[in-house]
Amino acid sequence: MFDQFEAQAPLDKESFERQSLALRQQLLEIQFSLENTRHPVIIVLAGLDGAGKGVLVHRLNEWMDPRGIETNTYWEHSDEEESRPYLWRFWRQLPQRGRIGIFLGSWYTQVTQQRVDGTIDDQAVEAFCRRITEFERQLSDDGAIVIKLWLHISQETQRRQLEEKAPRRQQNPRVTDHPYELVGKYQQAMATSKVVIRNTQTFQCPWHIIDGEDRNYREIKAGEIIRDTVIRRIENLEPPAPLEQLPEPQNALASVDLGKSLEKSAYKKQLRKYQAMLQDLAWEGYRQKRSLVAVFEGWDGAGKGSAIRRVTGAIDPRLYKLVQIAAPTDEELAQHYSWRFWRSLQRDGRATLFDRSWYGRVMVERVERFATEAEWSRAYREINEFERELTLHGSIVAKFWIHIDQDEQLTRFRAREQEPYKRHKITDEDWRNREKWPAYETAVNQMIAQTHSEHAPWTLVAGNSKYFARIKILKTLCKAMEQALY
Amino acid sequence: MFDQFEAQAPLDKESFERQSLALRQQLLEIQFSLENTRHPVIIVLAGLDGAGKGVLVHRLNEWMDPRGIETNTYWEHSDEEESRPYLWRFWRQLPQRGRIGIFLGSWYTQVTQQRVDGTIDDQAVEAFCRRITEFERQLSDDGAIVIKLWLHISQETQRRQLEEKAPRRQQNPRVTDHPYELVGKYQQAMATSKVVIRNTQTFQCPWHIIDGEDRNYREIKAGEIIRDTVIRRIENLEPPAPLEQLPEPQNALASVDLGKSLEKSAYKKQLRKYQAMLQDLAWEGYRQKRSLVAVFEGWDGAGKGSAIRRVTGAIDPRLYKLVQIAAPTDEELAQHYSWRFWRSLQRDGRATLFDRSWYGRVMVERVERFATEAEWSRAYREINEFERELTLHGSIVAKFWIHIDQDEQLTRFRAREQEPYKRHKITDEDWRNREKWPAYETAVNQMIAQTHSEHAPWTLVAGNSKYFARIKILKTLCKAMEQALY
Repeated sequence: MFDQFEAQAPLDKESFERQSLALRQQLLEIQFSLENTRHPVIIVLAGLDGAGKGVLVHRLNEWMDPRGIETNTYWEHSDEEESRPYLWRFWRQLPQRGRIGIFLGSWYTQVTQQRVDGTIDDQAVEAFCRRITEFERQLSDDGAIVIKLWLHISQETQRRQLEEKAPRRQQNPRVTDHPYELVGKYQQAMATSKVVIRNTQTFQCPWHIIDGEDRNYREIKAGEIIRDTVIRRIENLEPPAPLEQLPEPQNALASVDLGKSLEKSAYKKQLRKYQAMLQDLAWEGYRQKRSLVAVFEGWDGAGKGSAIRRVTGAIDPRLYKLVQIAAPTDEELAQHYSWRFWRSLQRDGRATLFDRSWYGRVMVERVERFATEAEWSRAYREINEFERELTLHGSIVAKFWIHIDQDEQLTRFRAREQEPYKRHKITDEDWRNREKWPAYETAVNQMIAQTHSEHAPWTLVAGNSKYFARIKILKTLCKAMEQALY
Repeated sequence: MFDQFEAQAPLDKESFERQSLALRQQLLEIQFSLENTRHPVIIVLAGLDGAGKGVLVHRLNEWMDPRGIETNTYWEHSDEEESRPYLWRFWRQLPQRGRIGIFLGSWYTQVTQQRVDGTIDDQAVEAFCRRITEFERQLSDDGAIVIKLWLHISQETQRRQLEEKAPRRQQNPRVTDHPYELVGKYQQAMATSKVVIRNTQTFQCPWHIIDGEDRNYREIKAGEIIRDTVIRRIENLEPPAPLEQLPEPQNALASVDLGKSLEKSAYKKQLRKYQAMLQDLAWEGYRQKRSLVAVFEGWDGAGKGSAIRRVTGAIDPRLYKLVQIAAPTDEELAQHYSWRFWRSLQRDGRATLFDRSWYGRVMVERVERFATEAEWSRAYREINEFERELTLHGSIVAKFWIHIDQDEQLTRFRAREQEPYKRHKITDEDWRNREKWPAYETAVNQMIAQTHSEHAPWTLVAGNSKYFARIKILKTLCKAMEQALY
């Protein structure tokens, strides 16, 4: 990598001016050609302190139309960031389709810093890098053009740079100790960087190592790489992502015993019991700063809403947020489909309850063809990775599919049409979906087969008896939290 | 208020059931009739601890379609909230048009709490209440239906309630000490509440005081108030907001001496000087946790972009965010027009630079008739109140209008059409706007007359000489920050 790395001759002012004039024009053109495409551009600017990342940002803003560019820096973390899964802070800053996001300090910052500080070992670095490559793969699969630039400088150059900056540094002590700078520690920083770069060097999102010694050279070079990568991608010169090979799903739904039921009196007793238990567990979760992420899915009319109310009825309003998933807004459509779920995650110690969820991707979006096969078939992996990020952070994940049979659904639809205050719940769409029952059945079975994991298990709830279903859900939540908290 | 307050007879179960069935249906109907209107509904639930606010939330969610309701609670504040103007935390939680937001703990929480704790005096309470009424007036003017409910209970009732809750409280100690509960302090809490209610009792957003002794009664009552208020509003029975009376603007633009200019050599020297100064001031602002909010407006072709680049070129990328204001997204259109500016405010110690801003409301939106006269004419007051909130929080506000004359604009438009990498900057729209020069001139003059204040002053920048303009802006920013920081 850096070993077979060739130092470049500096670029004289005059040829810089000439090349920069042409490049500037080309960069502007590709910037405009990005508009109304599905491609956001994500530029990761990395390199040791003193490599000239900052000035490169200014140059790119000067060459291109700054209206389409956002620069994001990561050094101090707010408690809202610290109290959510690590990647949340980056998800919330991702550029929209057609826009350019420059990351000065990125998902590479912390892992590098911690390794240099010796707070983590090489194994941890590799594990972390796997998560980074998953993250980048997800973005790239969705259309993002991820460009990773490493500005390489020699040890003396760094020393010289730091000495020049020294006076300013005394004035602005903060500069010297923010998380992503590796001031002075050239050897350790380079050693770690090599490991990180090697472990995150993928075909889809490769690293570009640029000789950073000469400002003119590195700026032209960076501009050219950005230009060429974007052109290659928007002209679709890269091969289409292969479809995931999925095993035949077994019929999990068939295994649900819909005969189960519960007497009203027993229901009332257990409801009180488990709601009280859940209330205390919610507070214990708050004390331990562990958050709960619960997903509620099920057939239309399965009783999702009333079951969720029994859960929210138990938890202090300060400790939960109910997130209703409907049609995405345009800000959400301008991002990876996971973005809207990342954005609604609550802080540690709180519960986030999803009434419908990211599983819409592999159910309604699949059946209604809102998502292409490539999109929904890779979504299983994306979902598993998303939920692993949650559990790695310490969140407790519970997923419920409330199951009923077609007769029960029919009965409930009819009943709803009678009750004035329930009529709104039953629409033509519900009747249309009902006709697609078999298609949904296949989708649900595959979803369960693909996304049922130990850290984020599915609970299939027998829903023909609402009483039974509600208690089953409360009980399962209590058990999951108890296991995690005690 | 509470003195002439009449205690109500409790409501028996049977009549509750009957009334609730009808009410539920009516509430659902108004909830649906809200869809696709410009009206968000903001329900403030207040009252002493033990008054039954929590159970009322559950009831409302049961009566209405929870998909259209968000419940917000305020007790602990994140540092991201603490490090922004006080109202930011509420702005970011406001419901979209057509939706319902229930605030359990609200902008009334802190002021009441602090008064009871004795950390602020009555004068401070009154000042704070003025800001609250301004806030509510802004939301209401924009279509929000603000419903403020106070659940009133007697001292014994509170004592009884607290005793019942006592065992749970021991388990969940957090409950007893969160900011908005005034556990036990009945007398002081009531005294303060009276002052706060009296000071925020407006025609537009009145308080409704409900006897909270009997659960059945208070829930029916609350439901009825919500129903009636919403109906009155969406049927437009309330008189239209009167137009603001605006004084004739003096011609501020005429006073700008466009003859001013600067030599290239002098420019280069001063650029270095003031950029270095600004860099240090930005770090000093960071140290003192004071944030800078700078607004850049000006004629098309006035050189906003290049001037802004000289500012961003001086500030460490970690310390500023450049916010480009273009057409609003649908999430932004679903909110008060100020919402998008509130949402982009950076944290204390950072600079937020607005390339175009909230002043679009009284310029382009006025001239192009995107905003009604009622909307843009009340916007001056809203803007002054917004900027007042910023400065009250300690932010440094600087506003620039870069002025050029029509000939200079023409020259620059022509020049841009020649330069390949500038061509994108000049569009048909620019030519169209140019024809509306007089209309914009009136709007700009009025804007300056209405929104030039000591705490948030306008700087009119002579822009015919770009060199002069850039230095003028850098110098002004340095001066403003110096005065604030030293």
